[in-house]
Amino acid sequence: MKPHIEAGGVYVIAPTPFHPDGRIDDSSIDRMTDFFLQAGVTGMTVLGQLGEAPKMAHDESVGIVKRVIARAKSLPIVVGVSAPGFAAMRALTQDVMAMGAAGVMIAPPNTLRTDDSIVQYYKQASEAIGSDVPFVIQDYPLTFSVQMAPSVIRRIHTECPASWFLKHEDWPGLDKISQLRAWEKDGSMRRLPILVGNNALFLDFEMERGADGANTGYCFPDMLVDVVRLSKAGKRDDAHDLFDAHLPLIRYEQQPGPGLAVRKYVMMRRGIIASDTLRKPGGALTPAARAEVDYLLSRLAQKDSRAKV
Amino acid sequence: MKPHIEAGGVYVIAPTPFHPDGRIDDSSIDRMTDFFLQAGVTGMTVLGQLGEAPKMAHDESVGIVKRVIARAKSLPIVVGVSAPGFAAMRALTQDVMAMGAAGVMIAPPNTLRTDDSIVQYYKQASEAIGSDVPFVIQDYPLTFSVQMAPSVIRRIHTECPASWFLKHEDWPGLDKISQLRAWEKDGSMRRLPILVGNNALFLDFEMERGADGANTGYCFPDMLVDVVRLSKAGKRDDAHDLFDAHLPLIRYEQQPGPGLAVRKYVMMRRGIIASDTLRKPGGALTPAARAEVDYLLSRLAQKDSRAKV
Amino acid sequence: MKPHIEAGGVYVIAPTPFHPDGRIDDSSIDRMTDFFLQAGVTGMTVLGQLGEAPKMAHDESVGIVKRVIARAKSLPIVVGVSAPGFAAMRALTQDVMAMGAAGVMIAPPNTLRTDDSIVQYYKQASEAIGSDVPFVIQDYPLTFSVQMAPSVIRRIHTECPASWFLKHEDWPGLDKISQLRAWEKDGSMRRLPILVGNNALFLDFEMERGADGANTGYCFPDMLVDVVRLSKAGKRDDAHDLFDAHLPLIRYEQQPGPGLAVRKYVMMRRGIIASDTLRKPGGALTPAARAEVDYLLSRLAQKDSRAKV
Amino acid sequence: MKPHIEAGGVYVIAPTPFHPDGRIDDSSIDRMTDFFLQAGVTGMTVLGQLGEAPKMAHDESVGIVKRVIARAKSLPIVVGVSAPGFAAMRALTQDVMAMGAAGVMIAPPNTLRTDDSIVQYYKQASEAIGSDVPFVIQDYPLTFSVQMAPSVIRRIHTECPASWFLKHEDWPGLDKISQLRAWEKDGSMRRLPILVGNNALFLDFEMERGADGANTGYCFPDMLVDVVRLSKAGKRDDAHDLFDAHLPLIRYEQQPGPGLAVRKYVMMRRGIIASDTLRKPGGALTPAARAEVDYLLSRLAQKDSRAKV
Repeated sequence: MKPHIEAGGVYVIAPTPFHPDGRIDDSSIDRMTDFFLQAGVTGMTVLGQLGEAPKMAHDESVGIVKRVIARAKSLPIVVGVSAPGFAAMRALTQDVMAMGAAGVMIAPPNTLRTDDSIVQYYKQASEAIGSDVPFVIQDYPLTFSVQMAPSVIRRIHTECPASWFLKHEDWPGLDKISQLRAWEKDGSMRRLPILVGNNALFLDFEMERGADGANTGYCFPDMLVDVVRLSKAGKRDDAHDLFDAHLPLIRYEQQPGPGLAVRKYVMMRRGIIASDTLRKPGGALTPAARAEVDYLLSRLAQKDSRAKV
Repeated sequence: MKPHIEAGGVYVIAPTPFHPDGRIDDSSIDRMTDFFLQAGVTGMTVLGQLGEAPKMAHDESVGIVKRVIARAKSLPIVVGVSAPGFAAMRALTQDVMAMGAAGVMIAPPNTLRTDDSIVQYYKQASEAIGSDVPFVIQDYPLTFSVQMAPSVIRRIHTECPASWFLKHEDWPGLDKISQLRAWEKDGSMRRLPILVGNNALFLDFEMERGADGANTGYCFPDMLVDVVRLSKAGKRDDAHDLFDAHLPLIRYEQQPGPGLAVRKYVMMRRGIIASDTLRKPGGALTPAARAEVDYLLSRLAQKDSRAKV
Repeated sequence: MKPHIEAGGVYVIAPTPFHPDGRIDDSSIDRMTDFFLQAGVTGMTVLGQLGEAPKMAHDESVGIVKRVIARAKSLPIVVGVSAPGFAAMRALTQDVMAMGAAGVMIAPPNTLRTDDSIVQYYKQASEAIGSDVPFVIQDYPLTFSVQMAPSVIRRIHTECPASWFLKHEDWPGLDKISQLRAWEKDGSMRRLPILVGNNALFLDFEMERGADGANTGYCFPDMLVDVVRLSKAGKRDDAHDLFDAHLPLIRYEQQPGPGLAVRKYVMMRRGIIASDTLRKPGGALTPAARAEVDYLLSRLAQKDSRAKV
Repeated sequence: MKPHIEAGGVYVIAPTPFHPDGRIDDSSIDRMTDFFLQAGVTGMTVLGQLGEAPKMAHDESVGIVKRVIARAKSLPIVVGVSAPGFAAMRALTQDVMAMGAAGVMIAPPNTLRTDDSIVQYYKQASEAIGSDVPFVIQDYPLTFSVQMAPSVIRRIHTECPASWFLKHEDWPGLDKISQLRAWEKDGSMRRLPILVGNNALFLDFEMERGADGANTGYCFPDMLVDVVRLSKAGKRDDAHDLFDAHLPLIRYEQQPGPGLAVRKYVMMRRGIIASDTLRKPGGALTPAARAEVDYLLSRLAQKDSRAKV
């Protein structure tokens, strides 16, 4: 296995742009990818939960990955391959790795309960997809109902050489980062890059606890890039000032359910994608919600010129 | 939409036979299908939860269905198409209906909570796969964590013309059958065939409450056929005598997890399939469990000659 | 049954102050109650989830309520009485209503799934505690795992005359408020006061959707009072300005688990209670977390003088 | 701490008998206790889940325990003290231990997920109730949604000197018993008595895997005593013959929800208690269910004279 790419900065979670009739919008994929590159992201994750992965047929999934890889050039592309069984997971992994993906992301099935069963699952998954395929551990208890203790993450990372980085979205999660970093420091765990999710709701302090960056899809990924940069440069107040300006919208976008519609709507208003269409069973924003987002953008525009849309 | 086939008797849930190395065992599929036909089943369901559906790649799934349909001739074949998203569900449905399947089975995703969300899900699923494709409602709260009130089932059946029959495996579930039958009687619901699951653990009384048969995969489907027949013929004591003889093994096989390994082991001992292999993450029976099943079979053989294996 | 008090404004969720050794701190209860009165709250809820209710013996619970009622004079006091069974619920209700409580709050047990079972639970609970005792519906799916559709809330409110107001903390929840208000408007539901929770994370927009106020315990309840007042007065930008200044801390305090420790720590720093002690199994803030809260307070102090502590 | 009583045989789970109006029926408590003594049980557990514990006020709970202890003389009495918080747990424990209870039973709250959190909970609970109070670990994932790996049980038993025995009701659970016994054998765990629950649905094989007896409330505890005795005496076929005769009813009684009503109904028919009343929210058997139980009893009577009622 070749050495893992050192993950850090912003691995943006890409939505999947659709035409209003539900077909995949290829030119929006290109435009979005270009935007991410210019924004300074260091990686991209496609076909995650908020990429509407389960709504895509296998061929569509493969097509999206192919297009993004071609467009993003040297940017590492991570592909969500979570599936109810290893067969579909392996099939998609093989296809996308052959096309040049940098690795895959795997979420635990929500039936797992004991520590051992979680570790065992990742070991079997890694074996199933190929033990040389770098994979991202997705720790997202709010959606998956699976609680991973820090010691479980350490075990997965220790027992699976292909473990690449952690998409951290536990809530609360600050002390978890501190614990993992303490274990690295005392030598009881090999280096584990940590990129945070949860729509960046705690990015400000997560960076200070030792996160390496973000792995989420907030509609202003360019802001995420700046906050990560400012924080790494030790400009604490500046990082918080920028972050706080966006927090009202971050919070609004983080709502489960309508959150993705908010994200696509803002990205449409910013000209990044052409339509904010979601495939079923996802729904459109209500007029009231749309007006609220407009109001949030108008307020944000007073503090961050990026929001002048 | 052509009229639904009137479901009744035993729609056996078929396991997927594998070679010891995990490849699909085609000749065991044929032998198993022949056995089911001779046993008098009235239908077959393939690629259900206990058919290890999530462990199959799309092409494998299609291949299994094709082979079974060819072999089973006029027997109606139901195919499990549950998936995390409608795209995969539609893709598999289209393929199998084109090959001659009689309908599909859909389980609700375990995130559904409110009554409305369950009804809405089935309506959207039916629309997604094609509103002329007969579908089976799978009501299995123990595994799917989704509780369907009788009124929810009535709503699905009323609002979806393609609703075909109910795979009933709520627990407890006897009064649910009585409620649904009462609604049919008073005209507030159109006829809903009910076939029961849960490894037939309550088949004896479920038949008396108004079930039309079984839709499960107990390792002696020939016994299920006889119990359904005896019960429908009003031979209550005979039905219970036969059922009770099998109950120790039924109960043993109904254990979540090892249950499928028990089923395959007995079917292997009966000569129906060649190997009791499960694909990962399923495991083999421990020697202790295997010995317990052997003991149960030896006891059963004293009451039912079918168990002399 | 006498007419319900018209709920609105801020019904603050009161924490229970302890001495460092875990005994109840009576003088802090008094000081805290006085503070709430001066802050302009319109009601108080004691012994909620974040009042550490399950950690109190029955006599302790009764003692706290007695003390608060005596001190708060004419302020309506709501008491959380959720319990695994109706016997304990009734016992506490009878005791506190006899002492002058205005009503009680009831959360649904987390085993409820179907719409009917939720409605049935509230009907039985209301009967058990006395059908003339005003009760608050607590709709908090994140903690209780019970999803109440708007139609379920309407049914509870319609079928239980003693239903008083809704503690709304669904997430997402904005459209739920709009739906309930639409039903009031078209006459299909009697007036239902809505006070919002979730640590006020969406108070800004919830007010605009039709909420009557807040029923939560954020460590600056005086700010909640002002936001509610500004919002009701139509001073939209002012309401958002004040709210946004607090949002970084609101978000930090809303973390499940450490959130209550944050709340008590800030209230201690503000001089409202003497110690930030939690009873077991609650834990103290880590030094890192404490420093983060200090930093948030120092930033907040630049925008809201209340935070100069 | 005095040495634990060596648990084995049948610790029967006692229901709480009520008068038809819901008051506690003291004379039925006495008659039931006498019956259990004559049946040869070696212990009694009161106020478990199926003792309707949450429906009892504190004083009622104490009264029941007092009465049973006085009547049962030297029989060890275990009291269920599970509660949402340690305060109520400690209060009840102190009261019942002072009256002469042998120990208490504690179920884990259904929010626990990680291995560490489960172990931590039992350590804190033991400390809270008094570290010299023998406690029973209740491992019942079906109801409590908490999965305890064998290694978690070993840790609890090792780290808590007051850990007394395991009420084992995992499902599947046979290999769990084998694992725990293997650890005792290789010296990596101190002796842990195991009594099984789940309405004895697997008692036959659980005894053979190494269980010490049963801790459940099936309506024929006298049969449980005999099965345990026969199994310990190595009379395998006799044990299974007796067990199998009861299995149709065992299965029927094990239904969650109506199961307790079945149990009380049969105990009423056997003359052990005067009424089969359940407190709300428990309901009565439907006439159809009652007739089914009658039929099961009539069939059982042909094989076991105890059922001639």
